[in-house]
Amino acid sequence: MPPITVAVDANGADLGPAEVAAGAALAAQRGVRVLLHGPAHEIGPVPAGVEVVDAPLSIAKAPDPALAVRSSPEASIVLATKAVAEGRADALVSGGSTGAALAAGLFTIKRARGIHRPALALPMPVPGAPVLLLDVGANVEVRPEHLVQFAFMGAAFAQAVLGVAAPRVALLSNGEEPGRGTPDVVAAHARLAQVSGGALEFVGNVEGTQVTEGVADVVVMDGFTGNVTLKLMEGVSSKLMRTIRDVAVQSPRGRLGGLLLRRPLRALRADLDPELTGGAYMLGLRRVGVVAHGRFTRTGFARAIDVAARAVREDVVGRTLAALDAAGALRPAPSSETPASVQAP
Amino acid sequence: MPPITVAVDANGADLGPAEVAAGAALAAQRGVRVLLHGPAHEIGPVPAGVEVVDAPLSIAKAPDPALAVRSSPEASIVLATKAVAEGRADALVSGGSTGAALAAGLFTIKRARGIHRPALALPMPVPGAPVLLLDVGANVEVRPEHLVQFAFMGAAFAQAVLGVAAPRVALLSNGEEPGRGTPDVVAAHARLAQVSGGALEFVGNVEGTQVTEGVADVVVMDGFTGNVTLKLMEGVSSKLMRTIRDVAVQSPRGRLGGLLLRRPLRALRADLDPELTGGAYMLGLRRVGVVAHGRFTRTGFARAIDVAARAVREDVVGRTLAALDAAGALRPAPSSETPASVQAP
Repeated sequence: MPPITVAVDANGADLGPAEVAAGAALAAQRGVRVLLHGPAHEIGPVPAGVEVVDAPLSIAKAPDPALAVRSSPEASIVLATKAVAEGRADALVSGGSTGAALAAGLFTIKRARGIHRPALALPMPVPGAPVLLLDVGANVEVRPEHLVQFAFMGAAFAQAVLGVAAPRVALLSNGEEPGRGTPDVVAAHARLAQVSGGALEFVGNVEGTQVTEGVADVVVMDGFTGNVTLKLMEGVSSKLMRTIRDVAVQSPRGRLGGLLLRRPLRALRADLDPELTGGAYMLGLRRVGVVAHGRFTRTGFARAIDVAARAVREDVVGRTLAALDAAGALRPAPSSETPASVQAP
Repeated sequence: MPPITVAVDANGADLGPAEVAAGAALAAQRGVRVLLHGPAHEIGPVPAGVEVVDAPLSIAKAPDPALAVRSSPEASIVLATKAVAEGRADALVSGGSTGAALAAGLFTIKRARGIHRPALALPMPVPGAPVLLLDVGANVEVRPEHLVQFAFMGAAFAQAVLGVAAPRVALLSNGEEPGRGTPDVVAAHARLAQVSGGALEFVGNVEGTQVTEGVADVVVMDGFTGNVTLKLMEGVSSKLMRTIRDVAVQSPRGRLGGLLLRRPLRALRADLDPELTGGAYMLGLRRVGVVAHGRFTRTGFARAIDVAARAVREDVVGRTLAALDAAGALRPAPSSETPASVQAP
C-alpha cells in the first residue's frame, strides 16, 4: 500500500510554522507523507518524509475568509487544498484558521456529491463519555436535511476513526420528546427516526444536561448552537476549576487539600488535553480535512495528521456516502445551490 | 402602603403542596400576603398571613400545557393566574411546572401592551460573575424585535430586582463581531447598537466562553439556545465535580485532599444554591410571574415569593415598558398575532 499523503497548511499556528513542521516530522516518522505548505524560511531544515512547498502568504487572520480564499490563489491554505483537490494529497490539515480552511475546502476540495453542506465535527474528551459534536460552526443556519446528513457524517466518522462499533446518534434539543425543539429539529427527528437501524442508531433528542452523560456517541446540532455548546463547555469547566482553586487557597486546610489533589488533577487534565483529539474535522467534502487548534504544539499537529491519515485509510468519505445512499438521504440532483456561507467557530 | 399579595400555585412541587405552603408561611412572616391555590386537605393547617383557595386539580404534569390550561378552568395554576389578572393579587408564583405557568400566564394574565412575547429569565449564580440569562425556554423561535425586547426586559429586571445599577446587556452569539450569528442575532445586534445608552448598556455579542466571565449582567438569546445553555451549564458543572471526586478517591493522598477540601467546597455549593435565586422569571406579562423549581424546599419557595413581591414594589413591568417606549421598541399597534407557542424548558 502506498503511503498516505497529507497536505498541511503551516500558517495560522500560534507557535509559528516551525512548530507545525515539527509535528509533521513526528507524523512522517510514523509513515505518513506530508506536503507542508508555508514560508520555507520559517520552517527551516526539512524533516525526513516531509516535502515543503514554499507558500509564505497566510490568510489565517483574514476578516473575510471566503473573499480571501477567492482573491489569494497563492495563499498557503489555498495551495494545500489544491494539492488535495488535484490528487497530490489524500487529506488536508490546517494549522489554525477554521474560517480559511472551511472556505478553501468548499471552494477547492468541494462538497462530496450528494452532500448539502459540510460540517465541522469536534470530538470532546469528556471523561468516561467521549462525544462527537457536530456542526460546531460551519453553518449558522441549517435545514432538516442538513441535520440528517450531519447525523450520518458523524456516525461514519465515529465508527471509522474513533472506533465506536455502533455509534448512537442524538439530536440536541430543549427536551427529549420528539416534538420538542425548533421546527427544523422536530423535522430532522422525524426523518432520523425513519432511517435509524442500518448505519445509524438514532437515540432521539438529548438535552444540554445529557451531552456529558454518555447517552450518545454523536450529538448533532446546527453550527450556531454547536459553537455556543463547545464554548460553554470550555468556559464553564475553566471557570469551575478556577473557582475551586480560589476557594481552596483561602484556608491552610484548603491549600493542603489542593496540594494533595494536584497530581491526580494534573493526570485528569492530561486526559482531557484537546491536543489528543487532533482538532475539528471537516466532514462532507470530497476529502477529509482537519482543523488543528492554533494553540496546539507539535504533538497536536502530529495527531491531526495521524487522524487525517486514518480517516483516509478507513475511507470515511466513502462510508458516509454509502450510508447516506442506503438511507436515501443523499441530495437528489446536482443543484445550483450556492456554497454555504462560512463562519469560523 | 398596603401589603403586596402574591398568588401561589402549590401544585407541581416535588415535595408536595405542604412544602410550598411552608414556604408561603415564611414569606408571610416577612410581610407578604399569599393567596395559596392547591389541595386544601394536603396543605393542612393554614399559616398566618396565608389564605388558602381550595384547588385540588393540578395540570403540572399535563403533556400539552396550553390545551390543559384552556380545558381546565378549575386547575390551581389557572385560578392563581386569574387572581392576578383580576387584581386580587399583584404577582404569580408557580410551584413547579414551567409549561403550565407560561401557558396560564399568557392566556390569563396576558402580555403587557406593546410586548411581542414574554420570556423566561434565569439568574445564574456564577461565583463573582452572576448573570441573568433570557430567554431560557419560553420561545423556541424568535424574531429580532423579540430579542431587542428581551434585552430591555432583562435590563429592567436586573436593575430593579437584582440591584445592578447599570446593567450591561449582551447577545449570545458564535463570535464577538457584530456580523456574527444567525441573521436574527445580527439584526438584533444592529438595533440594540442604535438604542443603547438610556436604560440599556449594550456591550455587543458574547461567546459561550464569556457567559461565566462577568462581561455582561444580562445575556440575551432565543429560548432554544437558552434552554441548551442553562442545561449545559448544569450538566458540565455536575460532571466535572463528579469527575474530580472520582479522581480524588483513587489514591489515599487524593482522598485526604478531598477530605480537606470538603468544607470550602460545601460553602461554595451553598453560594451556588439555585434556591437562592427564587427560580425563573416570566417577564413581559402584565404582572410578574415566578416559576420556582419543582425540586425546591420551603426556602426556595419563600424566596420566589419574596422576589415576586420585590418585583411588584420596584415596578419591573412599568420600568420595562417605559424603557421600551423611550427606545421606540414597543410593538406599534395591537396586532392579531396569535399567542406564542409555549414549551417548558
